[in-house]
Amino acid sequence: MPARPQAPTLSPAATRVFQRLVMSGDASRTALANDTGLTPGAITRAVRPLLEAGLLDETGDRASSEGALGRPATMVTVRARAHQVVGVKITADQMFGVVADLRCQVLDELTLPVTDLRPDAVVAQVAELVDHLRAGRPEVGGVGLAVSGDVDAATGHVAYSPFLGWRDLPLGELVARRTGLPTTVENDVRALLTGERWYGVGRGLSSLALVTVGTGIGCALLVNGQVVHGSFGVAGEVGHVLVDPDGPLCHCGNRGCVEAIAGSAAILDGVAAAGLDAGSVGEVAELARSGQADAVRVLADAGSAIGTGIATIANLLGAQHILITGEAIGSDYDVMDPHVREAFEERAFGSAARSAIELRPLRFVDWARGAAACAVEDFVTHYGRS
Amino acid sequence: MPARPQAPTLSPAATRVFQRLVMSGDASRTALANDTGLTPGAITRAVRPLLEAGLLDETGDRASSEGALGRPATMVTVRARAHQVVGVKITADQMFGVVADLRCQVLDELTLPVTDLRPDAVVAQVAELVDHLRAGRPEVGGVGLAVSGDVDAATGHVAYSPFLGWRDLPLGELVARRTGLPTTVENDVRALLTGERWYGVGRGLSSLALVTVGTGIGCALLVNGQVVHGSFGVAGEVGHVLVDPDGPLCHCGNRGCVEAIAGSAAILDGVAAAGLDAGSVGEVAELARSGQADAVRVLADAGSAIGTGIATIANLLGAQHILITGEAIGSDYDVMDPHVREAFEERAFGSAARSAIELRPLRFVDWARGAAACAVEDFVTHYGRS
Repeated sequence: MPARPQAPTLSPAATRVFQRLVMSGDASRTALANDTGLTPGAITRAVRPLLEAGLLDETGDRASSEGALGRPATMVTVRARAHQVVGVKITADQMFGVVADLRCQVLDELTLPVTDLRPDAVVAQVAELVDHLRAGRPEVGGVGLAVSGDVDAATGHVAYSPFLGWRDLPLGELVARRTGLPTTVENDVRALLTGERWYGVGRGLSSLALVTVGTGIGCALLVNGQVVHGSFGVAGEVGHVLVDPDGPLCHCGNRGCVEAIAGSAAILDGVAAAGLDAGSVGEVAELARSGQADAVRVLADAGSAIGTGIATIANLLGAQHILITGEAIGSDYDVMDPHVREAFEERAFGSAARSAIELRPLRFVDWARGAAACAVEDFVTHYGRS
Repeated sequence: MPARPQAPTLSPAATRVFQRLVMSGDASRTALANDTGLTPGAITRAVRPLLEAGLLDETGDRASSEGALGRPATMVTVRARAHQVVGVKITADQMFGVVADLRCQVLDELTLPVTDLRPDAVVAQVAELVDHLRAGRPEVGGVGLAVSGDVDAATGHVAYSPFLGWRDLPLGELVARRTGLPTTVENDVRALLTGERWYGVGRGLSSLALVTVGTGIGCALLVNGQVVHGSFGVAGEVGHVLVDPDGPLCHCGNRGCVEAIAGSAAILDGVAAAGLDAGSVGEVAELARSGQADAVRVLADAGSAIGTGIATIANLLGAQHILITGEAIGSDYDVMDPHVREAFEERAFGSAARSAIELRPLRFVDWARGAAACAVEDFVTHYGRS
């Protein structure tokens, strides 16, 4: 590995400027001063060490209306490729990896099957994936891992991951030791939220809820510009919001949770109970589209349950934007969409109904990109800080 | 009014030290350095202008184990009386005022009846209350107002207060003009939360939920150390969490909200429907204590509804501490307490059940003290900042 120059010491103001730039890609010095509330002199002092470290570029030749008397404004640009990270989403049967740059552009991707879930085996395989992806890329300087379950991002510990069968696993430390790279670990849904916050719909928002719909109902929350981690490792459990005390039994032991009505298993159980044969939510949606009444009812109930869940988020937190996503959203879940919105509007209290509701499909690469975003966030937040 | 010295210019670090001291009352320089992460030199620079302004005192004569070789540690103490504020809670029939110092100790209080809810009349009466309370107290340098409804604390505007019948009222500006004092306006439940955060159970917590039970069910939330205001003015609407889709009709148009089961009117309606005669929730509690089955059932349902509401808060936010309060909590609501806890434990997901649940009575002076805390917070946060 080629020697990398020592990071300079950055002030908190410089970190703020760097964060702002990584989010937007570029900005004029005037815009930076306006957005951060710093003086032009402070912007100059903040930008200088980052220019010297090769993480930013400066161009004076871009004409802009900001330039007084037609003088071109100085643009500061992120040299996105100067720092790269590997992001990996680990599931029980596959791990999806990407190399991404500072702007979270995906430069390469690789998927490996997972055959052995014992921690040692998984760590070895993550290291193999990272080694493949970093080959010939000396700019790779960090790893981000996204794992379902209860993850302590501060320590990189996986406290409990039911799908992977792990408890109290110091995953970050193990992977850092194997790869020699700083390693960030985050809950997978919160990693997705981090991606949206830095590079997606969450840019510039102070509050955002992201809900993933699939086997389970996941949720990550941004409140006052910060990700909610929960005091005891639990947060965003919109899947266990009560919808109907007489509803189907949930694995949590209660009845009528959102997940017990709108999770994939609940949907398949619902149509099976009506004597229908469907192997996936997609097939249920097909039946519904063809007018099959029980399929329509089951998906309508699922959509309403999700709508009640997100209305609860809106009522408690006043979220600005609520993004509902999942592999099947936008194709299979289109049948649910009107029911989601109808239940949301019914139950959102007063101006909480003004939250923007967005349904969007989720590709597997998005998960790995979210993991990469966490590694970039860590890099940008800690670069040059003692 | 005697001339007050010009505020010095404080650095962000100095503001942090000031905040930390106002929360705790005093601290050794060593503790300040540890808690804020500043160097001893930075602590000295932060403290100096506040000592000079007479807002802090320094004492070297207090023995402490922190002092090396028995040398006494230097304690820095808040001169709490040096800055005082008037806090006022405005209701439709009374306004409760207190004078409080920087540590939110109540020095005096006064209640005035409200007979005319027109904004001009209320503003005049607030000014009268403030004038009474500040007489002979040149240290009074700010006003905090607590009002139910949709309040924009940033601008001091009351967007909508149903109980007071106000819409789009620039209350802060009007009172500031009449009193000549900087005026802070906050939603009353968020004001209570601010009091708890600065001087009560919330000190040092990063997440806290405060739920007020009475005619309505109010709620204010602290997440990641910050009060949640909601993107569109709505947040903390735990009163409209769904408990039972077949439950009683709520004023919001839905059925089975927490408030439609556990609000005072719902409780009285519940026992009236069973043919019982009770004029207050206290009387319902008396009936329940004497074993009257319908009264027991109505209060059990109310307690369970509140328990479901706070479990929803815990599941979504992972709140560290949940404080349930109200005028009648601890006396009338004692009958509910076990039902609140039982439903909470049933519906809290995994380690979210570790939230501490506290039920505590609420005195009217607490509301005014919360308003005062908002004025102190504004003073401490903005003192010496341009």
